[in-house]
Amino acid sequence: MNRTKARLSDGREIVYYDESPGRAPVADPRGLPPVEPVCEVRRDPLTGDHVTITAHRNTRTFLPPADQCPLCPGGPASEIPDPSYDVAVFENRFPSFDVRTPPVPPSIDGVERSRGAGRCEVVCFTDDHSASMSLLPVSRVRTVIDAWADRTAELSAIPGVAQVFAFENRGVEIGVTLHHPHGQIYAYPFVTPRTERMLASAAANPDLFGDLLKAERAGSRVVLSGEHWTAYVPAAARWPVEVHLTPHRHVPDLAALDPGERDELAVLYRDLLRRCDALYDTPLPYVAGWHQAPVGEGRDLLRLHLELFSIRRAADKVKYLAGSESGMAAWINDVPPEDVAARLRAAGG
Amino acid sequence: MNRTKARLSDGREIVYYDESPGRAPVADPRGLPPVEPVCEVRRDPLTGDHVTITAHRNTRTFLPPADQCPLCPGGPASEIPDPSYDVAVFENRFPSFDVRTPPVPPSIDGVERSRGAGRCEVVCFTDDHSASMSLLPVSRVRTVIDAWADRTAELSAIPGVAQVFAFENRGVEIGVTLHHPHGQIYAYPFVTPRTERMLASAAANPDLFGDLLKAERAGSRVVLSGEHWTAYVPAAARWPVEVHLTPHRHVPDLAALDPGERDELAVLYRDLLRRCDALYDTPLPYVAGWHQAPVGEGRDLLRLHLELFSIRRAADKVKYLAGSESGMAAWINDVPPEDVAARLRAAGG
Repeated sequence: MNRTKARLSDGREIVYYDESPGRAPVADPRGLPPVEPVCEVRRDPLTGDHVTITAHRNTRTFLPPADQCPLCPGGPASEIPDPSYDVAVFENRFPSFDVRTPPVPPSIDGVERSRGAGRCEVVCFTDDHSASMSLLPVSRVRTVIDAWADRTAELSAIPGVAQVFAFENRGVEIGVTLHHPHGQIYAYPFVTPRTERMLASAAANPDLFGDLLKAERAGSRVVLSGEHWTAYVPAAARWPVEVHLTPHRHVPDLAALDPGERDELAVLYRDLLRRCDALYDTPLPYVAGWHQAPVGEGRDLLRLHLELFSIRRAADKVKYLAGSESGMAAWINDVPPEDVAARLRAAGG
Repeated sequence: MNRTKARLSDGREIVYYDESPGRAPVADPRGLPPVEPVCEVRRDPLTGDHVTITAHRNTRTFLPPADQCPLCPGGPASEIPDPSYDVAVFENRFPSFDVRTPPVPPSIDGVERSRGAGRCEVVCFTDDHSASMSLLPVSRVRTVIDAWADRTAELSAIPGVAQVFAFENRGVEIGVTLHHPHGQIYAYPFVTPRTERMLASAAANPDLFGDLLKAERAGSRVVLSGEHWTAYVPAAARWPVEVHLTPHRHVPDLAALDPGERDELAVLYRDLLRRCDALYDTPLPYVAGWHQAPVGEGRDLLRLHLELFSIRRAADKVKYLAGSESGMAAWINDVPPEDVAARLRAAGG
């Protein structure tokens, strides 16, 4: 893996992860004005959860025509000046968190307030606009894993960053605004609400993740497994399709994976995605997110794992989050986890 | 308010709340087979949250033609046998929770498991298919409030019910399957995850709701207020449009409201809904949910309040819940709460 860093015309960083050496970055010809993000974090007094307010994002790019894809290499509208790339990562032009965001007063009407000083990145998996993660060669998935791991290490070192989340949103059904195969990374200036709950569970049982993996491996919902990884539909799945992919070793994040674990992950992750895409006639819309341990407190408690889920509950139906889910965080899942696991096992990778 | 109880042909209960006396219920002619719900609750070991699995619901009614609306009165497909009604409440034919659900073993692969023995009801606000809550006379909104209060009291008395949630999902954008104006009530056999978080906050500050109301009333996000109620956009709003409507008195639920509070609520709630519908050219899709105190532990801590929110972030755009929200419960809101409050104040009720 060969890493090359450069800057876009507005000062944002771009990082190329190439499978061959020799990259000499092309200059960004666009002459963009500097980004001026306004990211603010407020703490909900009712729940203690951090909520992020980002007024500048409401005008962001929405499904541009393919000939203006900002993730295709080169061209006047591209975010990636070079004519080709393997994996390219750049700072999001419409970030939810950014170290450039201006300071804010420490409270508003009694509610805690802070600037959203993190970083948001876009991760392009391939320069082929019509590909998908599941169709890439294993060698490219392996490069993406190395890129994720490197970004995790770099972003974790930014002062104020509390947690790094690498994820892929795929499909119009979940609001994807760019079809070119890509993921995102959020470096949050706080520990996220879902992670806070996991940390509370892990504090009550420090071997939570080991116990859970052991129980799931003995259960009926394993989808696939290898020497280093197991994928299973969790017993308490919230979504019509949900799979967790967990390493057998207790590691905090992607950066801590050894080469053997990364090699197997590349194979099993692609296998898992192919099984998901085989469930229906059309590719599955999904969110696939890497849960990583916080940078600071609780780092030893949380085990790295992927949570992949889809809102599709039948060939022609999606699950909407309405009163119970959005209002009460009480998920109602119409699809038994045991059935989904059996279908994914049968699907073939 | 005149309450009349009857049974549908499959044994489900229907309750009429009429503004005039004299109801003599018509028998349900359908001869439906008994409902056989299969509702199961599992506790996610990672978060401690309860997740509900309901395999029988995946085949439920989805946007039937208007002439087969099950909420229009009378007719062969109707759930409401009588030829007219003011407010009618009946047990959901596709419940997420039901006391008739069979027992389950106490665990599955180490995960806590219990039957979902609660109750789900449908609340029809009017027999006029093309109306909406915001267009009803204040007197009808008042009757709905009495019906909600009565249902809350009745459902809270069911053994095993831990919390009662009355809510309305409105709009195709959030997945509403029936257009006839209606809401739902979930009587959960557990305290919901969002409520659990509020209870934790309230345990740390027993005057949480009083302090918050005081701070919000002194702030810049009040939308409307009266003698007994204040509506405001919360400082840490998660949604592009979000309003909380809170009583000035610390009451646990709708059943505890006195007549003066109910009278003012009918006026202010309709005013609020009209302001929401005036934000754009078309009516706002929304979820409006009544947060009520648990039946048991924590009952004195949580104050009744409405949380109304919408996924619409611009005239032609909706907010999708993707990686950060659905994966990490970390909401990113592109619309500053102060701006929404100003627009709702200007909208007129």
